Amino acid sequence: MTASQVASLPLSAIAKATRQAARQLAVLPTEAKNQAIEAIAQALEAATPEILAANAADCEAALTDAIPKPLYNRLKLDETKLKAAIQGVRDVGKLVDPVGKVEVHRELDEGLILKRISCPVGVLGIIFEARPDALIQITTLAIKSGNGVILKGGREATRSCETLTKVIHQALSETAIDPAAVQLLTTREETIALLQLDQYIDLIIPRGSNSFVRFVQENTRIPVLGHADGICHVYVDRAADLQKAIDITVDAKTQYPAVCNAIETLLVHFAIAPSFLPLAAAALQKRHVELRGDEASHKILPDILPATEEDWSTEYSDLILSIKIVDSLEDAIDHINTYGSRHTDAIVTEDEAIADTFLAQVDSANVVHNCSTRFADGFRYGLGAEVGISTQKMPPRGPVGLEGLVTYKYRIVGNGHIVANYVGEQAKPFTHRDL
Amino acid sequence: MTASQVASLPLSAIAKATRQAARQLAVLPTEAKNQAIEAIAQALEAATPEILAANAADCEAALTDAIPKPLYNRLKLDETKLKAAIQGVRDVGKLVDPVGKVEVHRELDEGLILKRISCPVGVLGIIFEARPDALIQITTLAIKSGNGVILKGGREATRSCETLTKVIHQALSETAIDPAAVQLLTTREETIALLQLDQYIDLIIPRGSNSFVRFVQENTRIPVLGHADGICHVYVDRAADLQKAIDITVDAKTQYPAVCNAIETLLVHFAIAPSFLPLAAAALQKRHVELRGDEASHKILPDILPATEEDWSTEYSDLILSIKIVDSLEDAIDHINTYGSRHTDAIVTEDEAIADTFLAQVDSANVVHNCSTRFADGFRYGLGAEVGISTQKMPPRGPVGLEGLVTYKYRIVGNGHIVANYVGEQAKPFTHRDL
Repeated sequence: MTASQVASLPLSAIAKATRQAARQLAVLPTEAKNQAIEAIAQALEAATPEILAANAADCEAALTDAIPKPLYNRLKLDETKLKAAIQGVRDVGKLVDPVGKVEVHRELDEGLILKRISCPVGVLGIIFEARPDALIQITTLAIKSGNGVILKGGREATRSCETLTKVIHQALSETAIDPAAVQLLTTREETIALLQLDQYIDLIIPRGSNSFVRFVQENTRIPVLGHADGICHVYVDRAADLQKAIDITVDAKTQYPAVCNAIETLLVHFAIAPSFLPLAAAALQKRHVELRGDEASHKILPDILPATEEDWSTEYSDLILSIKIVDSLEDAIDHINTYGSRHTDAIVTEDEAIADTFLAQVDSANVVHNCSTRFADGFRYGLGAEVGISTQKMPPRGPVGLEGLVTYKYRIVGNGHIVANYVGEQAKPFTHRDL
Repeated sequence: MTASQVASLPLSAIAKATRQAARQLAVLPTEAKNQAIEAIAQALEAATPEILAANAADCEAALTDAIPKPLYNRLKLDETKLKAAIQGVRDVGKLVDPVGKVEVHRELDEGLILKRISCPVGVLGIIFEARPDALIQITTLAIKSGNGVILKGGREATRSCETLTKVIHQALSETAIDPAAVQLLTTREETIALLQLDQYIDLIIPRGSNSFVRFVQENTRIPVLGHADGICHVYVDRAADLQKAIDITVDAKTQYPAVCNAIETLLVHFAIAPSFLPLAAAALQKRHVELRGDEASHKILPDILPATEEDWSTEYSDLILSIKIVDSLEDAIDHINTYGSRHTDAIVTEDEAIADTFLAQVDSANVVHNCSTRFADGFRYGLGAEVGISTQKMPPRGPVGLEGLVTYKYRIVGNGHIVANYVGEQAKPFTHRDL
């Protein structure tokens, strides 16, 4: 079946075709996957004029529809952005293959060998907003990790995504990978249907607004990788270095306020508040940050707005910061564990014991001492690529790289071994010898 | 608050108290946890008469209620079983502490250090049927992994579970662990309520019937560790050794037919069916296995019952086996990936290439070559203890030991580092040097 024949099928048949193609992709050697990735890079280079023309048409329609400016900026794909995306494709080609890693290798008894080996998850369902370059990155990560992928791009980006998918399909048709391993959906109805396909899709990665991610989480039985909220904190301890505390607070709030690892609430130990808060407020207000304080902080900063209970659970994603004075380290930890979203939380202190308690007891994927929350990111962690940040408790947690797109299976190889010989009074013992 | 004061609270308050206690337990050193585990073992030994008396009362009531025999056998706790359970407690004490393992240790830049460290999940919700010894094992595993635990035992075992919990609470009250870290619920209504407590419970482990596990999976947003079905297969390839194929089939079906890793369907390559099936049928029928075959196998074994489409998706958990003749390895893989429950599936063949394809393409947590499916088990794998077997795609998958009860967090420690210095034209580079 050709890719365009597959695309005209009903969704469940498309997903089934993707699963079949993914099963072949799962067992390809690294070299074959890397060749396909290079073929994609070359095809995207060759098709640059066609891709940019499709994107220009999307952008024109977006202007007519008067879509919000930030969305428009994400939609817009110029030559520089496309070049960077193609470089990203080649970078993924250079990453270590996460498939086939032997994690356990153990003799259970003579001739009975257990291996736990990393393997692809299967088929990924990725739902993303406008950014057409996300399609390029995700497809490459899926191929590198041996997974099929069903992509659902934003409506605004339909022409761009269709052109990119066509180019990728053409590139793959010359390689060992069946183009059906990569599929594009374009309608909103298909998003809803996608979430029901637990028979064919193994992992959903939603990229978009908090409310969208929450909608996905609440409407599928398929595991979801991602996070809805990013309510992050900086706690300035009584033993903080003032200058570090100010620098870190300003960076964590203002360096890029719209992202998930920017902070929303500043917690301050009461003993340092009188010396710290006026300096911090001046530095933040210089960056046009609106401050909202609880009663105690209001006594030190009388000109700021009052904070209400709602502020503690609000992700502003903007130049707004709520401030609360706490009585103790325990209060700070309690506040974070109650109102935070288990994403990223920082302490500023010169007291190592206090830092250790904070890092151990704050229940977040990323806990940070004397540096900015903004470091919590797959690229900055050196993961090579980031498929998302998970705030769930179970792994993969925090910034997730390629390893979040693989799972593992246990393989046992014997020579006619049966369990009946290992039970009862004459039971043979297991050797359990790691190899 | 004492343990009995906590027990009289509404469920959400109990869960909150467990979470608080778990937060302290999470940071205890290995030695303190091992001391608590030894204290539990000693307390159970000292309270043996009281525990056996409570269990005798449960058993008497169970006889009056005429509960099924297998359930009664699981409920019954004699001195031998209790001694074995106490030995199990001490065995868990000897296992390596899964908490605090440094999984990533990386310099991001000078003085900016990233660590990924394993940490407890938080609070476990465990729902189990009659077996009171399960309570002992689960509590010990929870403590060793630094987790709080809310236990819901079967109604039949209420007296046994209450006595065991009382003894465990008394033992813990003399240790570093707050007894509130271990809670017991006893009513069915509380089970339903437990599933809604996603604010306080991080992982649910249901132990019970397939339909019960499915009910739990469909009625909670909390991650569930476990499996509903165990539809496992043996595929006898054309290149199989006949004797191995017969031994493995008989073992996988009859050694313990009620368990999840026993097989329900035998797939046979058509080329070997005429020589293999009569021998296999004779061996199986000698063990009183009822055989149900498709049309093709019926031609070779005219006396067996016919298999219907429904048989391929039925977990008999009994001495019944369905048989299907397939045309090829691909057909066998397709059948398993379509009807199986991704639990454990075996191939018998002397052809290594065929075995490799099977092991790679069968989409199950455990894939097995030339040995019985019954080996797929935490104890046999040498995990030391098993908290359950997961058939989900994402890790933890397959038999899950202590490591399934921990997650990880990323810790970054800097010295005033801010992200603003690592972006833009003057961006400092990251060193990304593994330490």
